Amino acid sequence: MQKARRKKASPFPPEVLAVFEDIKRTRNVPDVNNFWKYLARNPALLARTWQDVKQVMAPGALDPLLKEMLYVAVSVTNGCGYCIASHTAAAHKAGMTEAMFGELMAVVALANATNRLANGYRVPIDAMFEP
Amino acid sequence: MQKARRKKASPFPPEVLAVFEDIKRTRNVPDVNNFWKYLARNPALLARTWQDVKQVMAPGALDPLLKEMLYVAVSVTNGCGYCIASHTAAAHKAGMTEAMFGELMAVVALANATNRLANGYRVPIDAMFEP
Amino acid sequence: MQKARRKKASPFPPEVLAVFEDIKRTRNVPDVNNFWKYLARNPALLARTWQDVKQVMAPGALDPLLKEMLYVAVSVTNGCGYCIASHTAAAHKAGMTEAMFGELMAVVALANATNRLANGYRVPIDAMFEP
Amino acid sequence: MQKARRKKASPFPPEVLAVFEDIKRTRNVPDVNNFWKYLARNPALLARTWQDVKQVMAPGALDPLLKEMLYVAVSVTNGCGYCIASHTAAAHKAGMTEAMFGELMAVVALANATNRLANGYRVPIDAMFEP
Amino acid sequence: MQKARRKKASPFPPEVLAVFEDIKRTRNVPDVNNFWKYLARNPALLARTWQDVKQVMAPGALDPLLKEMLYVAVSVTNGCGYCIASHTAAAHKAGMTEAMFGELMAVVALANATNRLANGYRVPIDAMFEP
Amino acid sequence: MQKARRKKASPFPPEVLAVFEDIKRTRNVPDVNNFWKYLARNPALLARTWQDVKQVMAPGALDPLLKEMLYVAVSVTNGCGYCIASHTAAAHKAGMTEAMFGELMAVVALANATNRLANGYRVPIDAMFEP
Repeated sequence: MQKARRKKASPFPPEVLAVFEDIKRTRNVPDVNNFWKYLARNPALLARTWQDVKQVMAPGALDPLLKEMLYVAVSVTNGCGYCIASHTAAAHKAGMTEAMFGELMAVVALANATNRLANGYRVPIDAMFEP
Repeated sequence: MQKARRKKASPFPPEVLAVFEDIKRTRNVPDVNNFWKYLARNPALLARTWQDVKQVMAPGALDPLLKEMLYVAVSVTNGCGYCIASHTAAAHKAGMTEAMFGELMAVVALANATNRLANGYRVPIDAMFEP
Repeated sequence: MQKARRKKASPFPPEVLAVFEDIKRTRNVPDVNNFWKYLARNPALLARTWQDVKQVMAPGALDPLLKEMLYVAVSVTNGCGYCIASHTAAAHKAGMTEAMFGELMAVVALANATNRLANGYRVPIDAMFEP
Repeated sequence: MQKARRKKASPFPPEVLAVFEDIKRTRNVPDVNNFWKYLARNPALLARTWQDVKQVMAPGALDPLLKEMLYVAVSVTNGCGYCIASHTAAAHKAGMTEAMFGELMAVVALANATNRLANGYRVPIDAMFEP
Repeated sequence: MQKARRKKASPFPPEVLAVFEDIKRTRNVPDVNNFWKYLARNPALLARTWQDVKQVMAPGALDPLLKEMLYVAVSVTNGCGYCIASHTAAAHKAGMTEAMFGELMAVVALANATNRLANGYRVPIDAMFEP
Repeated sequence: MQKARRKKASPFPPEVLAVFEDIKRTRNVPDVNNFWKYLARNPALLARTWQDVKQVMAPGALDPLLKEMLYVAVSVTNGCGYCIASHTAAAHKAGMTEAMFGELMAVVALANATNRLANGYRVPIDAMFEP
């Protein structure tokens, strides 16, 4: 009873807490970041999103650092403030130096520019690039 | 005169041809791809774009394969058909295997999805992600 | 002078106030939201935008709730913070439950992901989908 | 020769064929559309994408027609040609009439316009729209 | 019967034909372009869209050439193939030279690049840019 | 010690300060805005970006006001908050009136809407718009 007074009941249902536990264990972090807490409003969406993130971001043919850098490139292109902040942090944690970040940004800026040049000049695809 | 009959005059002015030569030499290719031929309508834009591409895509803190994969990630996110075709070809040439491409696509798809979840749930940035 | 003390002169010209009145009457709200107040800097744009919103969002072949949910889907995809906030509120007011919002977000996330998979794999359109 | 006549070797490995079978059974269609055939180059991506599509697009708090219309709204906003073609077909199959499509398009166009007006006028979010 | 041979019945209802006539008269062209013919599937959307285009693109504080160039800038940024083709043609008709197009494209490419640099570096807005 | 009191050591290396000086001289401003200070984390990217901006935004076939308005159109379409704020300020400084801004916004909104109508109705490009 005293304990109950000291400890606020968690606002999250058990299926959400189970996902949170798996995130914390997998990433070895003391708490989940806001993204997961907000998704928790819809437990099925939370669970599915975490399953996808867990599988896709695991080491495979590409290492985790490269994957985080790709994530940053997409998030910067889309202008998603939250994702830029969280995945830039994750990329730095995975080993991205400031110099690497600068080159990543240079490629992202250049690709966004040349994408529009190809659009605007209506460049036809060269035969050698066809499958 | 005879020579003139045998050899069609190039439709490109000298400053354009100089850029084309530098592209061919730098990339060790027999001809430039359509992108550059279309940009040639505006020689100043062509020259500046090539200078940027040459500098940004050169090996540095990131290797060329990683840079090409970042280029693909941006182009796929923006839906630029020409750029997807040309930079996927360039990435394969630089060593990207089919398995690597599959994981690249998985990260790009996932990031495009979670970018929208962060937008839609209006997730505030965690203090730990602030600079 | 006394009058001036009692009643602050409206900063908006009559043609703007007429639009504001129509918005308040149509939506049965005591005041217009910031979007309209900012557009008021350009009265012709304000009037035309309101006419479009009034016609497009009226009940028709689609009911207002579905229309608000489509609005949210577009705004989330584009990452427009103001529009996400205002149209999510409007959708909830029109009857969207938390469970409905969760599924809406799941579809928006999935579509943003698979749009990129179709782009990246350069999938040709099946004959059966052609008009 | 006899062999060739009897059974053409399938180009797809068993784990891909299992996904194809589930798609055909779930949707009651004789063949899968190109999207799945192209994803098959990366079996893990194919399997995960189908699991997500199967779960997200199933009837729930939102009915399948509404979900297909949201899919169209996102795909049109992103300009994904393949997804527009396939999901417009799916929405029509699920009951979308021409009049409904016209109103869907009207909302998508309007939202894309007003998203930019909110951006350009830098409209602050009204207190009543804050959570 | 003879009549039928001589004159094919128009596939468009009268309210659509009235819009087509206004477009042809306003632009002094012998026929409307495909965009309007496709929109005609939904007459209310067609009529409203034409009213907006007619008002917005008319000479005002900005001249028609500048308006067409802005249209091209947006269409190139969004990667809309149809709109790039039709509005580049319209801009050329309104007086855009090749040199002007080259500089337009250079600005569009640069803005798309620096937009991402501002996103990625999370640059805070300077006090002097605040309203 | 006295020196330290009089002159705080600049946090920027000489190659960055040289770029800052050129920006201040070219634009005749007492300080550079935040964009350049943040880019300074990567001096090579800073130098190249400034070279591009300096060349592209200089008067040419298009005047600086028109170029700033194109910049605003792109930034509004992409929803880049920083760029909208800084380039709207620059456009006003270059002579853009409120009425001109209103028409710019009207064109940007309209183009974003009709881009999606062309996408959604899958409008084929008219032969007369082909190069």
